[in-house]
Amino acid sequence: MGQFDSRDDFIRVTYRIECSGDPAAMAAKIAADQSTGTFTELPGETAAVRARGAARVQALTPLPDAQSAGFPSTEQGPFRRADVVIAYPLDAIGTDIAALMTVTVGGVFAVRGITGIRVMDIDLPSAWACHPGPQFGVAGSRRLMGVAQGPMIASIIKPSLGLLPQETAQVVADLCAAGVDFIKDDEKLMSPAYAPLEARVDAIMPVIRDHAQKTGKQVMYAFGISSADPDTMMRHHDYVVKQGGVAAVININSIGYGGMSFLRKRSALCLHAHRNGWDILTRHPALGMEFRAYQKIWRLLGVDQFQINGIGAKYWEPDESFVKSFHDIRTPMFTPEDCPLPVVCSGQWGGQAVETYERTGRTLDLMYLGGGGIHGHPMGACAGVRAIRQAWEAAEQGVSLADYARAHPELAASLAKWGG
Amino acid sequence: MGQFDSRDDFIRVTYRIECSGDPAAMAAKIAADQSTGTFTELPGETAAVRARGAARVQALTPLPDAQSAGFPSTEQGPFRRADVVIAYPLDAIGTDIAALMTVTVGGVFAVRGITGIRVMDIDLPSAWACHPGPQFGVAGSRRLMGVAQGPMIASIIKPSLGLLPQETAQVVADLCAAGVDFIKDDEKLMSPAYAPLEARVDAIMPVIRDHAQKTGKQVMYAFGISSADPDTMMRHHDYVVKQGGVAAVININSIGYGGMSFLRKRSALCLHAHRNGWDILTRHPALGMEFRAYQKIWRLLGVDQFQINGIGAKYWEPDESFVKSFHDIRTPMFTPEDCPLPVVCSGQWGGQAVETYERTGRTLDLMYLGGGGIHGHPMGACAGVRAIRQAWEAAEQGVSLADYARAHPELAASLAKWGG
Repeated sequence: MGQFDSRDDFIRVTYRIECSGDPAAMAAKIAADQSTGTFTELPGETAAVRARGAARVQALTPLPDAQSAGFPSTEQGPFRRADVVIAYPLDAIGTDIAALMTVTVGGVFAVRGITGIRVMDIDLPSAWACHPGPQFGVAGSRRLMGVAQGPMIASIIKPSLGLLPQETAQVVADLCAAGVDFIKDDEKLMSPAYAPLEARVDAIMPVIRDHAQKTGKQVMYAFGISSADPDTMMRHHDYVVKQGGVAAVININSIGYGGMSFLRKRSALCLHAHRNGWDILTRHPALGMEFRAYQKIWRLLGVDQFQINGIGAKYWEPDESFVKSFHDIRTPMFTPEDCPLPVVCSGQWGGQAVETYERTGRTLDLMYLGGGGIHGHPMGACAGVRAIRQAWEAAEQGVSLADYARAHPELAASLAKWGG
Repeated sequence: MGQFDSRDDFIRVTYRIECSGDPAAMAAKIAADQSTGTFTELPGETAAVRARGAARVQALTPLPDAQSAGFPSTEQGPFRRADVVIAYPLDAIGTDIAALMTVTVGGVFAVRGITGIRVMDIDLPSAWACHPGPQFGVAGSRRLMGVAQGPMIASIIKPSLGLLPQETAQVVADLCAAGVDFIKDDEKLMSPAYAPLEARVDAIMPVIRDHAQKTGKQVMYAFGISSADPDTMMRHHDYVVKQGGVAAVININSIGYGGMSFLRKRSALCLHAHRNGWDILTRHPALGMEFRAYQKIWRLLGVDQFQINGIGAKYWEPDESFVKSFHDIRTPMFTPEDCPLPVVCSGQWGGQAVETYERTGRTLDLMYLGGGGIHGHPMGACAGVRAIRQAWEAAEQGVSLADYARAHPELAASLAKWGG
């Protein structure tokens, strides 16, 4: 058996490397830098030391040259590219996410002489199944919302910022009446002076409870509990739990791995992740990290619901990237239960339902979140929710939206307003 | 008085924007997106709501057009650029770092239609002085090491990874004998199976104590205690404290804001920050975040010593960028005590001392860290430390290294090996 045959002894990281020299030499340099190397020869670097710590290049797949340098560079092209797999001994990293990030991610971006480097994937051995993963995921989300099948229809408080707690509660009442399964704070809302978390909980939870008593429908409300201080975040968490809340919006990059790890170990809430800041890692294709690699870390840490934009998002992300992200989070790492619920969002109003359904493997295990698409419906929010449900019925039945809209006036109104 | 005259009511963030359209229009769109906006008009967005939450463009400074698009783009040039200051109401964000990052940083990178965006600076009002900041900083570092004046000379365990605890202890003994003020674990070393944190502490601290008893010199050893799990990190912290240690290496990006906040509130150790992963934020000039903005957040969170590379670093960072970073961390945010100790490192062997001294304001309030430059000295580690001290004497006296080396054979040997 070769040195890489034992899948469980190594962490394998795939990098897309671009440089004006030889990608194989650059890959070897990165493997050395990220283990035992320095800029000059040292007496203590024995064979035994290297065996314990040294990373090795396992595979190299050449790619077409880049048209121009990824990072601005004074070097002459051609800029050669390759996907390179580097195998790191599990013993040298262990199962700590901080160690993984520093050894396999953090340092590689500092290397001199590259014009592009991107982490494409991280392949973790079975020892990494020790992490908690999602506490609720798809099944738990369905149970808490009482939605046994079909997409979970969600909305967000609008305007995003500036509403007082009682004004927010009125929006919640309207959305509950409109028939949504889930409502969330805007990710930018945490605990500002004009609407502190506790005051929002006090104003909103009676509306949720009242609606449940009257209709039997338990709407999931996700409160923005994020804080860079884990003690503050836990105080927010505990207050939501005490008042009967079941979910929270977490700005994962803004609390960091430590904040998420701390929260998950103590959490009774379904954790709805917003990835704001992720774009820095991915917006330039020659730099950063693929969502495929990124989402694995946050799943290990316990994300239950993952916002991943949608078809025709209002942001820069191409549809293709969204579709890949959807498949990424539905692919088990160790067990099917470690898949979070995909949250399809940004500029969604139902018009994207058919294409979303067709391109994501015809699944209804998703949350579909409309903000302006519900609040801004010409016949009101109730019609906005109905229009979205109608669009998903059309998708599931294989009918075009235009056809389905003939007998469904709410969907027809959406198409007339946004379908142009 | 105009709406922006009260410095303390707003958080001001400066962005470098690049787009094929009008930068002023793009700035206005970002300000709207990051406060109350969505993709369609909404009934609830009243003047009162906007007043509480709305961000506003305060200033715009045009810059020369970019030669080519920062991010790959199908849009036609010219790609116009501007530095834009957006003022966010303090009341809408408060003093939480997670709120700051999500509202002013995270979201802006998702905007459609830009070909570049970079956070250049963050100007925080006095309410933000509530954060703890460094516990030890420059003065505390000097006190703990017993170095009243002059640069603090530091080294790192080499090889970086793969040594057993007792092998590491032998390297520590050699470095203590060589006369360093400070020794650190490589940032990639946290608690691997072959050298767990506790075993390293057990092996190393007796060497440090023994050296102190024999010589009166207290060498500061910074142990790699980082973990993405704050509970584990605190267990490491407590073990170091219990065994008499005074410092720790923290991989700040790999633990995140939450991890750092949690640690600082409970820490008895001097926190030596390694910023691996920062390069992702800064390597492409049209994307990410200037160190000037980045370092402010980590100073608020309590970094005592900050690694910032050096002149002629082995990594990609240009000297100019290092010099700016040095000045950034020596600039008080609220008080002089909130400045961490600059740690000059990467490929340092003394040959850069004169230029470092001249370009950083002729200060000796710094740590100068040699790895290979000490371990790899042709006359041994002791001579390596002496050579570095000699180089700094030359810098302070305004003598060239070549002149000073005539009467100082250790420096002469360094120049002969690395000065070519």
